[in-house]
Amino acid sequence: MASVTSARNPLIQDVRQAVRKGTLTESGCCVAEGPHLLAEARRGNCTIEAVLAAEGIAVDPPPGVRVITLPETLFRGISATENSQGIVSLVKTRAWRFDDIFPETPLALILDGVQDPGNAGVMLRTAEAFGASGAIFLKGSVNPFNPKAVRASAGSLFRLPFLTAEEAAVLAEIRTRNLPVYAALPRASRSVSECDFRGPAVFVIGSEGRGVRPSIALASNAVRIPTMGVESLNAATAAAILLYEARRQRTDGRTP
Amino acid sequence: MASVTSARNPLIQDVRQAVRKGTLTESGCCVAEGPHLLAEARRGNCTIEAVLAAEGIAVDPPPGVRVITLPETLFRGISATENSQGIVSLVKTRAWRFDDIFPETPLALILDGVQDPGNAGVMLRTAEAFGASGAIFLKGSVNPFNPKAVRASAGSLFRLPFLTAEEAAVLAEIRTRNLPVYAALPRASRSVSECDFRGPAVFVIGSEGRGVRPSIALASNAVRIPTMGVESLNAATAAAILLYEARRQRTDGRTP
Repeated sequence: MASVTSARNPLIQDVRQAVRKGTLTESGCCVAEGPHLLAEARRGNCTIEAVLAAEGIAVDPPPGVRVITLPETLFRGISATENSQGIVSLVKTRAWRFDDIFPETPLALILDGVQDPGNAGVMLRTAEAFGASGAIFLKGSVNPFNPKAVRASAGSLFRLPFLTAEEAAVLAEIRTRNLPVYAALPRASRSVSECDFRGPAVFVIGSEGRGVRPSIALASNAVRIPTMGVESLNAATAAAILLYEARRQRTDGRTP
Repeated sequence: MASVTSARNPLIQDVRQAVRKGTLTESGCCVAEGPHLLAEARRGNCTIEAVLAAEGIAVDPPPGVRVITLPETLFRGISATENSQGIVSLVKTRAWRFDDIFPETPLALILDGVQDPGNAGVMLRTAEAFGASGAIFLKGSVNPFNPKAVRASAGSLFRLPFLTAEEAAVLAEIRTRNLPVYAALPRASRSVSECDFRGPAVFVIGSEGRGVRPSIALASNAVRIPTMGVESLNAATAAAILLYEARRQRTDGRTP
């Protein structure tokens, strides 16, 4: 067990910067706050590079993982939330490919400009929950490794295949694989429960401010989530309805 | 148009305290940030007590509503977010009763210990979207007037009936009205799509940490949202699935 007491320690600086910018660390680790995410990272068979703990916090690290203790004041600088409970883990996640996101009968999400890390993380959690094959973050969306997204994913980010990609690459993959893409639009004529999602299905979720970009909307089938009164749903809520409806149709409501 | 330049102005102190504590102001107004929520408050026929604007921000206030301009530095102290766009409205919402929440065939939410204001606000937005009759915040849940909840509701808080109440009062109302209550539990035998939500339905949503309290769970029918891999869904996601499923059954997927 090592101890760090200087704010200028390179590792501490690296982690602090990742938290501030909402990115991976320079060493390619994602910053996972709290004992729950440490347990989830282990469950996801991810490599845990190190566990940083505030002084006085009891840590049960995985075998062979170094624990670095920090004074409380220093620890606060590397924690984005008040829920870290004195533990921050540095986790290396798997790198995924389009083949992982798009298996034989994919159920996938595309995030198009989703900016809110909490919403993005919740979408990964919901995607895993309803048996999705994976998620794609189009360039211009939030960094999936933003510590707030990692936390909101509640560990799904350590298991669900996902990647970040340019629009052109994603559209090419979709064309090559001949995948149907669906975008929820308020004035679409068919409602989600009138669509058949039992085959391959890719759902695109736009940003709340600007919706789905025209080039992606053009490649999509419009579907309507039947709502009233409101202008729109929260983006993570819209994703949840689409994924749930697909799951319901695929399993007829039974747990698979 | 009035102008305030002192941080010790009583109105400014009142608003700042409400933002910090996540409550109504002492004068009973909810703090609504941004031009969008001002428009939504008007659409909801709420009384707008005043509009506070940062210097240099153009405001189009409703007729007869006073606009108070503040220096940028002072304005920042009354804004909880970076999305206020220089406008904060003080809004008086309607007071609702159990009769509003529980009409003849209610579709209602009970929030049991939901702490996150963003989740609570999203639940109100989703409830309105799927035609719910109202929502009840059990004591111990977040204050519905928390400015972050107001913002996450995207204006639904200005239209959807809701109230805060003690557990005993809520259970008494439910018994008197003979309403079926449903709680999503991971090991319930019936899945949501196997339940009949076409009649009256009250959905109880627990906190993510502790779930539904035992006394409420005892009064509830257990239903299962068919998920895999994850321990649980985000609380607002779980609420959305229940409400969507009820709406789907009630309208057979068509917009009402």
